[in-house]
Amino acid sequence: MTRTIEQLSEAERADALDTLPDWDYDEARDAITRSIVFTDFAEAFGFMTQVALLAERADHHPEWTNVWNRVEILLTTHDAGGLSALDVELATAIDSILGG
Amino acid sequence: MTRTIEQLSEAERADALDTLPDWDYDEARDAITRSIVFTDFAEAFGFMTQVALLAERADHHPEWTNVWNRVEILLTTHDAGGLSALDVELATAIDSILGG
Repeated sequence: MTRTIEQLSEAERADALDTLPDWDYDEARDAITRSIVFTDFAEAFGFMTQVALLAERADHHPEWTNVWNRVEILLTTHDAGGLSALDVELATAIDSILGG
Repeated sequence: MTRTIEQLSEAERADALDTLPDWDYDEARDAITRSIVFTDFAEAFGFMTQVALLAERADHHPEWTNVWNRVEILLTTHDAGGLSALDVELATAIDSILGG
């Protein structure tokens, strides 16, 4: 499988962010973040399990925090030194899980 | 089920920490924390799934962060305003999963 792990250019990033309105850009990390509030822990962790399987399949993993019904996700690509197409793909897949 | 959700006294906390040598006390949060490094994401998330089931059964949940093979856990009891017996029980159960 060929993988693109180059950091996105500023123009590519702007285009990507246009397709991901639920994500915020974290300039300090060159990352994107999304916070989601679920009904309860079971729903939050169920979502995390779906994302974990996607992430493992893509071999690209989130940085994330869970506090009961809340999940905070940060996506960046260490190997690329910042945001890459892998993050955009994972964010898009996460949005699909969330019905976004 | 009867549940103790009172904040531990200083003496109770000291006794509890003696039984949890792998946990650090976070004074600012009146919480205990433990960081664990696994081989990879699959192992880290497998552990989280075990903890999630325990936590759900106990109706007492961790605050936690995962970055690939690392998991950082913080336990405190919001309803008690700090560390309670519920945290000590969950920490002990987590140690058992980890073989500690």
